[in-house]
Amino acid sequence: MAIRTKEQYYESVRRQAPELYSFGERLGDIGAHPCFKPPLDAIGLVYELSSQQDYENLLTAQSPFTGGKVSRFVHILSDREDLARRFRASRYLVHKHGACIGARCVSTGALNSTYAATFDMDRKLGTNYHARFVSFLKQVQENDLAVAGAMMDVKGDRSKSPGGQLEPDSYLRIVERRNDGIVVRGAKASISGAVIANEIVVLPCTALKPEEKDYAVCFAVRSDAPGIIHVAEAPGPNARRFVGEEMDYGNARYGAHGSTHVIFDNVFIPWDRVFMCGESEFAGALVNYFALLQRLFSTACKIGHRDLLMGAAAVIADYNGVGLTRQIREKLTELYFQSELSTGCALASIYQAQKSPSGVFLPDSLYINIAKLQGVSAIWDGNYITSDIAGGLVCTSPTAKDFKNEKIGKLLDKYLRGRADIPTEYRIRMMRLIEYLTGQSSVIPVESTHGAGSPQAQRMAIQQALMGVLDQYKKDARIMAGIEA
Amino acid sequence: MAIRTKEQYYESVRRQAPELYSFGERLGDIGAHPCFKPPLDAIGLVYELSSQQDYENLLTAQSPFTGGKVSRFVHILSDREDLARRFRASRYLVHKHGACIGARCVSTGALNSTYAATFDMDRKLGTNYHARFVSFLKQVQENDLAVAGAMMDVKGDRSKSPGGQLEPDSYLRIVERRNDGIVVRGAKASISGAVIANEIVVLPCTALKPEEKDYAVCFAVRSDAPGIIHVAEAPGPNARRFVGEEMDYGNARYGAHGSTHVIFDNVFIPWDRVFMCGESEFAGALVNYFALLQRLFSTACKIGHRDLLMGAAAVIADYNGVGLTRQIREKLTELYFQSELSTGCALASIYQAQKSPSGVFLPDSLYINIAKLQGVSAIWDGNYITSDIAGGLVCTSPTAKDFKNEKIGKLLDKYLRGRADIPTEYRIRMMRLIEYLTGQSSVIPVESTHGAGSPQAQRMAIQQALMGVLDQYKKDARIMAGIEA
Amino acid sequence: MAIRTKEQYYESVRRQAPELYSFGERLGDIGAHPCFKPPLDAIGLVYELSSQQDYENLLTAQSPFTGGKVSRFVHILSDREDLARRFRASRYLVHKHGACIGARCVSTGALNSTYAATFDMDRKLGTNYHARFVSFLKQVQENDLAVAGAMMDVKGDRSKSPGGQLEPDSYLRIVERRNDGIVVRGAKASISGAVIANEIVVLPCTALKPEEKDYAVCFAVRSDAPGIIHVAEAPGPNARRFVGEEMDYGNARYGAHGSTHVIFDNVFIPWDRVFMCGESEFAGALVNYFALLQRLFSTACKIGHRDLLMGAAAVIADYNGVGLTRQIREKLTELYFQSELSTGCALASIYQAQKSPSGVFLPDSLYINIAKLQGVSAIWDGNYITSDIAGGLVCTSPTAKDFKNEKIGKLLDKYLRGRADIPTEYRIRMMRLIEYLTGQSSVIPVESTHGAGSPQAQRMAIQQALMGVLDQYKKDARIMAGIEA
Amino acid sequence: MAIRTKEQYYESVRRQAPELYSFGERLGDIGAHPCFKPPLDAIGLVYELSSQQDYENLLTAQSPFTGGKVSRFVHILSDREDLARRFRASRYLVHKHGACIGARCVSTGALNSTYAATFDMDRKLGTNYHARFVSFLKQVQENDLAVAGAMMDVKGDRSKSPGGQLEPDSYLRIVERRNDGIVVRGAKASISGAVIANEIVVLPCTALKPEEKDYAVCFAVRSDAPGIIHVAEAPGPNARRFVGEEMDYGNARYGAHGSTHVIFDNVFIPWDRVFMCGESEFAGALVNYFALLQRLFSTACKIGHRDLLMGAAAVIADYNGVGLTRQIREKLTELYFQSELSTGCALASIYQAQKSPSGVFLPDSLYINIAKLQGVSAIWDGNYITSDIAGGLVCTSPTAKDFKNEKIGKLLDKYLRGRADIPTEYRIRMMRLIEYLTGQSSVIPVESTHGAGSPQAQRMAIQQALMGVLDQYKKDARIMAGIEA
Repeated sequence: MAIRTKEQYYESVRRQAPELYSFGERLGDIGAHPCFKPPLDAIGLVYELSSQQDYENLLTAQSPFTGGKVSRFVHILSDREDLARRFRASRYLVHKHGACIGARCVSTGALNSTYAATFDMDRKLGTNYHARFVSFLKQVQENDLAVAGAMMDVKGDRSKSPGGQLEPDSYLRIVERRNDGIVVRGAKASISGAVIANEIVVLPCTALKPEEKDYAVCFAVRSDAPGIIHVAEAPGPNARRFVGEEMDYGNARYGAHGSTHVIFDNVFIPWDRVFMCGESEFAGALVNYFALLQRLFSTACKIGHRDLLMGAAAVIADYNGVGLTRQIREKLTELYFQSELSTGCALASIYQAQKSPSGVFLPDSLYINIAKLQGVSAIWDGNYITSDIAGGLVCTSPTAKDFKNEKIGKLLDKYLRGRADIPTEYRIRMMRLIEYLTGQSSVIPVESTHGAGSPQAQRMAIQQALMGVLDQYKKDARIMAGIEA
Repeated sequence: MAIRTKEQYYESVRRQAPELYSFGERLGDIGAHPCFKPPLDAIGLVYELSSQQDYENLLTAQSPFTGGKVSRFVHILSDREDLARRFRASRYLVHKHGACIGARCVSTGALNSTYAATFDMDRKLGTNYHARFVSFLKQVQENDLAVAGAMMDVKGDRSKSPGGQLEPDSYLRIVERRNDGIVVRGAKASISGAVIANEIVVLPCTALKPEEKDYAVCFAVRSDAPGIIHVAEAPGPNARRFVGEEMDYGNARYGAHGSTHVIFDNVFIPWDRVFMCGESEFAGALVNYFALLQRLFSTACKIGHRDLLMGAAAVIADYNGVGLTRQIREKLTELYFQSELSTGCALASIYQAQKSPSGVFLPDSLYINIAKLQGVSAIWDGNYITSDIAGGLVCTSPTAKDFKNEKIGKLLDKYLRGRADIPTEYRIRMMRLIEYLTGQSSVIPVESTHGAGSPQAQRMAIQQALMGVLDQYKKDARIMAGIEA
Repeated sequence: MAIRTKEQYYESVRRQAPELYSFGERLGDIGAHPCFKPPLDAIGLVYELSSQQDYENLLTAQSPFTGGKVSRFVHILSDREDLARRFRASRYLVHKHGACIGARCVSTGALNSTYAATFDMDRKLGTNYHARFVSFLKQVQENDLAVAGAMMDVKGDRSKSPGGQLEPDSYLRIVERRNDGIVVRGAKASISGAVIANEIVVLPCTALKPEEKDYAVCFAVRSDAPGIIHVAEAPGPNARRFVGEEMDYGNARYGAHGSTHVIFDNVFIPWDRVFMCGESEFAGALVNYFALLQRLFSTACKIGHRDLLMGAAAVIADYNGVGLTRQIREKLTELYFQSELSTGCALASIYQAQKSPSGVFLPDSLYINIAKLQGVSAIWDGNYITSDIAGGLVCTSPTAKDFKNEKIGKLLDKYLRGRADIPTEYRIRMMRLIEYLTGQSSVIPVESTHGAGSPQAQRMAIQQALMGVLDQYKKDARIMAGIEA
Repeated sequence: MAIRTKEQYYESVRRQAPELYSFGERLGDIGAHPCFKPPLDAIGLVYELSSQQDYENLLTAQSPFTGGKVSRFVHILSDREDLARRFRASRYLVHKHGACIGARCVSTGALNSTYAATFDMDRKLGTNYHARFVSFLKQVQENDLAVAGAMMDVKGDRSKSPGGQLEPDSYLRIVERRNDGIVVRGAKASISGAVIANEIVVLPCTALKPEEKDYAVCFAVRSDAPGIIHVAEAPGPNARRFVGEEMDYGNARYGAHGSTHVIFDNVFIPWDRVFMCGESEFAGALVNYFALLQRLFSTACKIGHRDLLMGAAAVIADYNGVGLTRQIREKLTELYFQSELSTGCALASIYQAQKSPSGVFLPDSLYINIAKLQGVSAIWDGNYITSDIAGGLVCTSPTAKDFKNEKIGKLLDKYLRGRADIPTEYRIRMMRLIEYLTGQSSVIPVESTHGAGSPQAQRMAIQQALMGVLDQYKKDARIMAGIEA
């Protein structure tokens, strides 16, 4: 059962009873909800493909912990090839779902970073976190669990550190230490896949000062544990799922993000699931491990989105009757150039990946930060270019119901047709997909900007890298100018 | 009554009975519909302000046709100052409504371009269109009518000209010439304000070949004339109006675009409302007059949107606790620089405006095209910058109903707060406005790209301007290189 | 004699005996020097054209001070049309000389800013500077003098203010106040045309603190006054003038900049030529007046350079055999777009010019700063685009002497030919012009970046303008979000 | 002797007697010429370092052909690590010479591409070129020869193919086939290091049509073979070497490019040095092999230049007194980001390198083209940023002789000082280096644009790569939109 079937995953979620609110009401059957069924099905798709032989190399790996085949998403990355395959998995799965598979995708970063940081802690402090974590990891691998990762605190006043907030719960913290475990309180914001995962690994979201020990906490928790409250995101496009029909959604099967704000209202965590408890000096390293890994997978994900974007732009050009004219080719080439600049640097970050003390391989910091930052620009530029190519119907297409209306349906079919040999419905469906991909009806652009760290975080990382080499560059320049020998 | 009150406008719309479809059903009371009330109220706002003394100079003008005060939106632009005031009116009204006032805004371009082109036609051909149009114009001015402009044909296969389409109705055309008028058939796409205007002025949308005479047609028609069928746009964000509450909408009062696809299903137009009928050699000039004017007003509109965007970005930075730190200031400065590059060129187009034979002043073609093209980049860049500043809650904020829930309301209030002294509701409202402004919940980005002509149209216009001066530049260069004397 | 002939100007320079050093030696006949003859001839060209009827409107104006015709370069700008003509004069003269006419161009900024600031001082302080300055101005206008403007101090340690420098002469200052005048010491850096002008107007280069009175000094001085030492710039391309021939220079007639560092080694200035002496609170205003005006004229100058650049790029495309293919057209269109964004904003700064208390019209600060900043980017982008179009011969062309060599001349003629019908010499000459224009053989790019203020100065000015409107934008946004009424 | 000493290299060049012209005269002692000594010394530096143990891994390799140690520049690249080391060698050597080492650098591309293409030809055609080439290669490796590569024909009218030119010699061609060899005629333009190399490998520069057999020619020739005439490039900055002193040159030791136009005036090539003779169908493949490899090494070279540029910019900021202020840091970070985008993609091209049939490894085409194109933008942007940081003295610094003048030397020392503790001479030297690096006194920018293929060539290669994947992207998009199953 180390590779579950789609049905087994669905069944596991059905058995969970998370406290989830949306539009002010507690939801019962998540799997039937118009805004949670799509991400559930996207995760289901990953399970389904993982069971297929064609995807074995891409989506599964051999685990040294279980001795058998496990999902690549919960695999410990022990060489560059592991990073490369995991990177490809993210990119190419987007071609299939076009949305978010956070409940699997973030598993990799959360598990690997905790694996690496607990190793470091034990070695330095003589603690026993690593063995405890490995035990949890085995359980995840053996049962092929969907694991979300919860890092981003709600943060309160951003000019203040965790310990300096008026509201001390602005960052998740330990409020009680008991014999059998700890009690935590706080909230993690916009957590992809949290409510459709089986487990959530919770990590701190920033380096901490020595006196901020209560914020240095890392643990695993079931997504429906007592005291955990999920509140659903409600982006504009989600609303359409209540009033439209399949044709109106752009990416009907998978195209809803499904993140929740996860509130920890005095949640008890037993010791065997606690992987950091007060070691504030290790919070920074854990955050950094996680960031390096998830920036790599997030970069892959956005490349996949832009691949779809280029495809959609080229199709709509066909439907509009302008095919691959030189003007269209040049616009697509610009988009491709922008997009592949990001890909190239991501590959460089894999090529130059370094082994951490635990054995986990981590992408090179400079190149993955460059890749991620460039990827954000490429998404926005790509949205502009694609909207430019597609035309105003991206926003003004009528609804499926209009097309079914006896009187106006035929008129719309006649008047909204582009090339004569393409059914009008195809053209409208492609416009809807572009509406979805360019964020007019989805969260992609903003999520591209902020997922796995804001652009400023990348800028800072790049700047730091520069500071590390600049003295040498300055010396070289002085020598060349004849000032130093 | 040359300046109507808001109530008089509402009353006039109430008396109209346009055939309007949305979600497959014919709508009755437009003024009560969640997606049409906002643009109706935006137009109402313009009427309201026009009656106020503070706005007299900005929003009204002295008409040589009626001899009295008329709305600036239906005024014939007879000097540069007229252009400048009309430009400011568009920009500053956006600060109030943040949406679209097409039913008034496009009046200026439609009326002035028809005024100018009918003058040219009569002078050259000895026809009587100009007097006929002036008579219609007086009626508009005296009754302060809201006039939409319908130019954009549905176009079918874009690689083919109007006369070359398999479906001849892909461009609106004359299908019958009768003693008392003409019958037209076709459809105009994505017409802002068409269904909430009193009148629609319909113009061709491209230069025509001599043999395409049936497509050379310009006329005025009531928005509820028999045979006219409106089909509502249905962008993603509109859907929220059916499931959300006021706080969820970002720009609740005015923030829905309300364009319709206007189908002309054999519509009869009496001769006194026909202003071009077969003079295909004048279609190009009419299109050009309209494009020059509407690109100026559209540019002003988008500057206004970016003004709002900068305001919203600065407010959310405050609410997040980072106020005007140096990093925020520099990002906003970049946005401002990009935005005002467009403004400066638009002002240059007014400064260098030229008088047409009819006396209508037209913005300089080079600078208004540059301004419009730069404005599109600035919108997309601005959306990126603003999303970057605001953070992920732009997409993941919960709903008003969640905040009202007894159990989670207080928790959300606690956890989604930024700076301690700012109510959480304010922060969420500002996130929703940014969601709206950046197009995650509105049509702004795409409409910015395509309204008043696609970027390619501006590129072509700029290129043509270059071709007009390049020979001289080449000659100068040859002289300087000592090749010519 | 209010409009001198070229010969009269040459004669006036010949009679001067400035102390000028170049390559470590004192130069005698400036007019015969390979690096000073070109800028002298560029100024001569301006005198020549000013005497021609075709250029009367562009290059001369009616002076209220002399009651007659004067050079536009020494004219007091008393309305927007004055600014517009002066702007066009700068742009279009570059098409003729392709270099720098600082000894005339800067006259306008120096004279107008001193005129305006002395007016302000007298009004506020009851001093008598303005009448003194007007008397000098009349002399300039009546004798049609070439006046350089010297603002940029050498500045020493840029982290320190004038009064805070270890070396107090790092900014020019008053070292002695006498009955008959003052003695000044210091140096002004990279002053265009200083040594070929008749007079130099010297101004402070930054706002000053109250205690920095000795640095608050403005005066006029002959360019060969005792104690003034000029040291010539020595950019790479100048060197070619000693080893090459006319064909090698790109812009042989006018293409050397000819700036000097002007050292004031205890220079005596009689009172009737002193226009500010200790009024440190007015230094900022004087600097600002000067900056606004010279940024306008500098912007015009760079537009002229880019016009030449586009011309040269188009010619070399012809010579290379690729003429105006679509690819070339699109590259040139991009360059034109970038360039005219700057022009449009400069025109807007004229359109929105404001009258100072003295009556001098000043360009709008926001738009002229935007225009200048955009112009710098456009120069560098333009250099890239043009180099891209031209090809590697921009750098690797052989010399005129090689073409004259009996053995290899014919071979070069055969092998370096592009299109068969264009003489090889023409192609090489155009490559040399491009080498010159793109800065591979001239100072243009850097001078574009720094002349009339560094980019950072423009960024700051734009940021300040934003700060002035941002509160209102924020308020508008709060109202729209329903937070304020 | 498989690794020669610097002296041995110098001695070998001294023994050659190429026919070289500059400024119309035939040069005798190349090694003493101010414009050829610098590149000769740069090559000498490579020989010198290659003999040092510290550089052994970087600059030498184990040859399977000689069985011993050979220079990395003449090594056949048989795995990805070979590419990676060769890449690093190019980048880091630039830090030492800051100029061009074409006579060694291009060896790699020329030798490897000919090795690979001769292998392909023999396999397909049964010819014997490969063995012949390997024999030449061994000689090169055993004698550690400096080998230039000559690809770029003079091309004549660029709208015409080799066979379509009016002047048939516009592309180098076989004019006679003899028993003992062939006679070739034509010219190769702007060949780096040709005259200071021992051997030149000559390749075709474009794919050829079947009927263009005479242009399908590849061979090795001594740089002083009878009939070979070199004409020196004469960029602006070279001229300074005749009138200035060491301090004026920026990069005095190595900073002259030294390319020559190489005319083949009926040159006889014996059969054992002919590696392609009429096989026009293989010209394209040979060109492509060469382009892929030299784009990689050229990209590395430009990264090295930008490294120096960042160093110089940071030093001059120090000297100016503004050190690493936030503003300077952000500008340098932007330059670093732009530069490392190119590096990352170059590394990706190595990571994804493919083995050719011959065993030579070739960089991935997509990523090396992206890297090269991005690198050109980064050079120009970097020049702008650096000039912005440095200030106008980049162009207006006086000469070494001025500083030595008894009267003005002290004044210049006083007035051109920046920070008080930095000698003025250091500041001027750094300005000169920046002048050199930014191309105001060197060929770097244009050479960056055109060396190893113009930007358009990279755009085309990227576009072709896109065309190869676009159908699949389109299919994915159609499936997602529900159009295909």
